[in-house]
Amino acid sequence: MKDTRYTVVGAGLAGSLMSILLARQGGQVRLVEQRSDPRRGSKMAGKSINLAVSHRGLHALEQVGLRQEILDQATPMRGRMIHAAAGTLTFQPYGTKAGHAIHSVSRGTLNRAIIQAAGREPGVELEFDCVCRDVDLDSATVTVQDRSAPEVRHLQADAIVGADGAFSVIRSRLQRTDRFDYQQSYLTHGYKELTIPATSSGGFALEAHALHIWPRGGLMMIALPNQDGSFTCTLFWPFTGAGSFNALTTPAQVMDFFGRVFPDAVPLIPDLADQYLASSTNSLVTVRSRPWNHGGRVVLVGDACHAVVPFYGQGANASFEDCVLLDQAMRDHPDDRAAAFSAYSAERSPHTDALADLAIANFVEMRDATASRLFRGRKRLERVLHRLAPGLFIPLYSMVTFTSIPYGEAVRQARRQWRTVILLAALVGLAVLMVLIWILVFILRGM
Amino acid sequence: MKDTRYTVVGAGLAGSLMSILLARQGGQVRLVEQRSDPRRGSKMAGKSINLAVSHRGLHALEQVGLRQEILDQATPMRGRMIHAAAGTLTFQPYGTKAGHAIHSVSRGTLNRAIIQAAGREPGVELEFDCVCRDVDLDSATVTVQDRSAPEVRHLQADAIVGADGAFSVIRSRLQRTDRFDYQQSYLTHGYKELTIPATSSGGFALEAHALHIWPRGGLMMIALPNQDGSFTCTLFWPFTGAGSFNALTTPAQVMDFFGRVFPDAVPLIPDLADQYLASSTNSLVTVRSRPWNHGGRVVLVGDACHAVVPFYGQGANASFEDCVLLDQAMRDHPDDRAAAFSAYSAERSPHTDALADLAIANFVEMRDATASRLFRGRKRLERVLHRLAPGLFIPLYSMVTFTSIPYGEAVRQARRQWRTVILLAALVGLAVLMVLIWILVFILRGM
Repeated sequence: MKDTRYTVVGAGLAGSLMSILLARQGGQVRLVEQRSDPRRGSKMAGKSINLAVSHRGLHALEQVGLRQEILDQATPMRGRMIHAAAGTLTFQPYGTKAGHAIHSVSRGTLNRAIIQAAGREPGVELEFDCVCRDVDLDSATVTVQDRSAPEVRHLQADAIVGADGAFSVIRSRLQRTDRFDYQQSYLTHGYKELTIPATSSGGFALEAHALHIWPRGGLMMIALPNQDGSFTCTLFWPFTGAGSFNALTTPAQVMDFFGRVFPDAVPLIPDLADQYLASSTNSLVTVRSRPWNHGGRVVLVGDACHAVVPFYGQGANASFEDCVLLDQAMRDHPDDRAAAFSAYSAERSPHTDALADLAIANFVEMRDATASRLFRGRKRLERVLHRLAPGLFIPLYSMVTFTSIPYGEAVRQARRQWRTVILLAALVGLAVLMVLIWILVFILRGM
Repeated sequence: MKDTRYTVVGAGLAGSLMSILLARQGGQVRLVEQRSDPRRGSKMAGKSINLAVSHRGLHALEQVGLRQEILDQATPMRGRMIHAAAGTLTFQPYGTKAGHAIHSVSRGTLNRAIIQAAGREPGVELEFDCVCRDVDLDSATVTVQDRSAPEVRHLQADAIVGADGAFSVIRSRLQRTDRFDYQQSYLTHGYKELTIPATSSGGFALEAHALHIWPRGGLMMIALPNQDGSFTCTLFWPFTGAGSFNALTTPAQVMDFFGRVFPDAVPLIPDLADQYLASSTNSLVTVRSRPWNHGGRVVLVGDACHAVVPFYGQGANASFEDCVLLDQAMRDHPDDRAAAFSAYSAERSPHTDALADLAIANFVEMRDATASRLFRGRKRLERVLHRLAPGLFIPLYSMVTFTSIPYGEAVRQARRQWRTVILLAALVGLAVLMVLIWILVFILRGM
């Protein structure tokens, strides 16, 4: 692996982390990114302003010594704060242990920190404002174009890492190879971001250490804390129909709708109607693909191979975990890059498919179920069961968020756990019934 | 619709038929095709040499006066002829009426006939050897390149019909628009074509009026008759593993495998090993997409929007039916092309999705179930039920193959029919039981 030349396309979360890992294996990495250098003050943030880092992401950041640096710039969220329409608040802890939290961090801050670390790595050469136009898979050649110049350049390497996001140029070329399975599917809901500013005294207008949810059935709003005291709100609403983005187009309509549906949020956002009308409406895509490699020449990481909707807070975490797993696969097959890439793709992709399903299911859970008594009862039962048998029963949310159990394995284990609980409950019920019958017989014989 | 200018990309089955329909609406159609003109003797056939035309396809061909011309060049197949490993033959009729048959026809013959008809249409201008390189959706401009010249031309029109097949350039551009759902998925099985020649006296080596199937569990072979007495055989085998294309690479291996698995076919193919080794192995893709239009500027028909695997014999039939339905939608919305295209896409795409599922399910049925007694019993029961209540019970295969009931509706109706049959059977069973009890009581009282 020493002196292998890599072109990494995309210096987002996955691409910049993967570059560090490849350089530390002895690789010569050229990292190309179409946006400008965030170290020179330009904003790297894509459309989503902040995200939640949890166990998988922190574990990956630890591999490159960035864990504490990121935690220092993040705000821990210990649970969900549910805002009912009537204004009542209910707190639902995320974890089963005191320390369990997910960490709200700005995507820009996080990305800049990893790019800075990549820049300090001797084996990594960074190029910004450099747009990937095309790729030749067999020769591992990327055609790039500087933003400011018309000429294209052909960058040849031993292997290409496609980390160029949900609309990946590298993947779209792989899609045209034989027997490449691919799916992109959109939710009928989109999103729009708003900001709840810090209070006049610089404090948080809502509980700081929670992810706030306003579940309203067919639609919802959430809010994540920022370190400056503000919150980033995201509206997840349908594009069309009643209570949709298309239905609210005037300040009066916006104020009326928020007044009825999110009354407690209205006083927190002074310029609500202006913000709403100025903010872009974005769509939510799920991407599945397979295989993630072209022999030993090309491999994909992150959203380029498995974009998920944001409702399990796992998009960035899964991308970081990809990098760790690809790094490990390459160490497991030091002399055969094709075998390493194939093993990584075959082992990893079923788990990100499972995550894609979980993320869509969690949308329904967040916007509908978090408001229901049954859901809260189930969450409480899960915590009780975990306390009774911490080694045998771990809630699914905890396995996904606070462990490194592969996603698909977590789903299977959760199913097994519930089957066991139901079986045990049935056995206990049967035993109780037998004891009751025995007592009844005893009483009748005594009569 | 008069004098609307259309560019139709792809003169395959759907594109050439659609061009005729558009011209007959008064449209000015430019039909561009990357292959050479089949009227000048060049072969239009893609990889699949022949196909089965049934009700939907014939209905569409009738709209342009080609039904009888095609039937004259086709060989009717009245049922499946199952070749057991032991050599025994079983015939399973396809239909419920004497005239029910599907029609084996060469793809090249069929395509050439429709192109000839398009060429006779005053409103259609044909361009062959003209490759579509790109498309601008909003301006309905196609960038094309003649095979023999380096220059590109930009063809601007009022609307574009994308009929450029499963690997459509038009669709791949639509795929990059917001909220376009797309899926391509491959079977783990591929296919390879062989030929059983006519006998020395020019006759058919097997029963002419049947689709021959050699079902062997994980793999199968089929054969369709050609008018010259030959049969086109298709092997549907896994790419890898035991009994796969990858496993047979020498003449001895081929002869040994065929001798064990398809013994009755061996004497019919004199140059079997040579043919097998010379024939390319092709993959089987399913494509789903939505929406099929970009406003009133672009619309898709045929494999470009819904490629299906060949196991229900409906690929070409569904493409032809698309053209009839798009033509009808445009007549229903004469002044609003966007509304016509949207209505066509919204109404049609759920049905081709249903067909995609049916086609994959029928692969399992053909390679496994056709050999089983249970399957044959079910087919016989279906025919009996249809004879008892022809208006109430129509076998699913018949609805798909011998009617124009939309595919998804056929699936739902088949489910309803079986539920009714099971309910009636349960009621009859109950009635019989009650009568038996009544008789028993009568006898006991008499004792």
